[in-house]
Amino acid sequence: MISLVGAGPGDPDLLTVKALRLIQRARIVAYDELVGPAVMALIPLGAERIPVGRRKGTHPNAPSIHPAVLDRALRGHDVVRLKGGDPMIFGRGGEEAAELAALGIPFEIVPGISAALGAAASTGIPLTHRDASASVTFATAQLRHDVDARPELPREGTLVLYMGLSTIADTAARLIAAGRAPSTPVAVVSHATLPDERTITGTLSSIAEQVLAANLPTPALIVVGDVVRKRVESPVPVASLSHAEARSAGVRRHARRGPLRVGRVRG
Amino acid sequence: MISLVGAGPGDPDLLTVKALRLIQRARIVAYDELVGPAVMALIPLGAERIPVGRRKGTHPNAPSIHPAVLDRALRGHDVVRLKGGDPMIFGRGGEEAAELAALGIPFEIVPGISAALGAAASTGIPLTHRDASASVTFATAQLRHDVDARPELPREGTLVLYMGLSTIADTAARLIAAGRAPSTPVAVVSHATLPDERTITGTLSSIAEQVLAANLPTPALIVVGDVVRKRVESPVPVASLSHAEARSAGVRRHARRGPLRVGRVRG
Repeated sequence: MISLVGAGPGDPDLLTVKALRLIQRARIVAYDELVGPAVMALIPLGAERIPVGRRKGTHPNAPSIHPAVLDRALRGHDVVRLKGGDPMIFGRGGEEAAELAALGIPFEIVPGISAALGAAASTGIPLTHRDASASVTFATAQLRHDVDARPELPREGTLVLYMGLSTIADTAARLIAAGRAPSTPVAVVSHATLPDERTITGTLSSIAEQVLAANLPTPALIVVGDVVRKRVESPVPVASLSHAEARSAGVRRHARRGPLRVGRVRG
Repeated sequence: MISLVGAGPGDPDLLTVKALRLIQRARIVAYDELVGPAVMALIPLGAERIPVGRRKGTHPNAPSIHPAVLDRALRGHDVVRLKGGDPMIFGRGGEEAAELAALGIPFEIVPGISAALGAAASTGIPLTHRDASASVTFATAQLRHDVDARPELPREGTLVLYMGLSTIADTAARLIAAGRAPSTPVAVVSHATLPDERTITGTLSSIAEQVLAANLPTPALIVVGDVVRKRVESPVPVASLSHAEARSAGVRRHARRGPLRVGRVRG
């Protein structure tokens, strides 16, 4: 069986319980560059690791499943296919599952915290808000290289753009042309949920220059809409808080030492 | 500190690792009716449980934080506030966090698998797909009772409606009036990720009657768009598969017996 597993935004604490268990039991793991190093560190030492690049430039009709993964599956091995974020949101999970089904290979799909959800929690920017937005759209600025049309972007509600950093000037101009006010607030969140997360905020008219000046690393998310003004931060930074929090921060240490265990903690 | 914690769609296996740890350590848990019983079963026996209803009909400007939760927080206790799905998507997490910040109460936000992500994984309906949709919008059909305007629904891309079952006839008519073809495929997923999950599929012109006939229980999600045609099922039902899967299904048993442990499994 192939498990198509969402690896979440990078913080291993944000894996689902099921994803963590599958990773820790895995004998064969296929992964791409969107899976963060802290999650990769959870893979058992003896497991086979198959790097599965995005293979840009391959033919658009080329299979989504990597040949090495197919090979293992057809020989009856279980494979954990780790995908950054959630497999069913910009993850090609549907395409890979369809190819597996066509070959008679059983599969399961395990959801993950998509980057937008991770960024909302870590930055304090809600994706919907009773006073600001009744909807949220996830879109990608990356196009299929065989298709010319760009998707229509919604004029209302929160918009989160995945993989849009390099085209942010064009996107901002399109949104203004489509009727969004140039003063619409925008946040760009780089490396959401990771220790080096950075957020810059501006407006549709200012953000492209700010991004250039800030030299933010990818992956980065772009959040457009009034919810950015609803951003809220804890009055006391969580890092300076309780023993319980200090223990919680210990997950990464445990991950380096051995299998991550989740259970009741004494005391 | 108050932890605003996404409880996911109901399957405790889909909690994040962090959410599970916070629940298992909790001494005070506030929850609402969207948190499923299998997740509730993970709360330690000795913990205080505070039911926090949605309190429909209260004044729209009433606080989002329940007075009992505030009381505990102001006395210095840690509270885990469980919210179905993800706190920042239709969860009022932003509102609650803002109220806490205004009172100087520290908080943290832990993301959860929003129902749409859980439903996509369990039904095999991708939310985006290179051949079907480059975006996905999450919207709610429930309105603020003090606001008359209904949000504009996108004419393109995947649309997922939360809390829309009772108004599905009206929503389908609006989408057709806005330019979507009456033959646009629609899926309704009831109790996504739970053992009694049910999915019906139809079109914008047929779905309202189908929903009436099927008598589906809430909560239910409505997925609109060509991605519904991309639904894919495993050639062999996962339930009949490997020992590893059988062990995986054992999470709920463990949950009844005691703290859930995630770790490397021997053999």
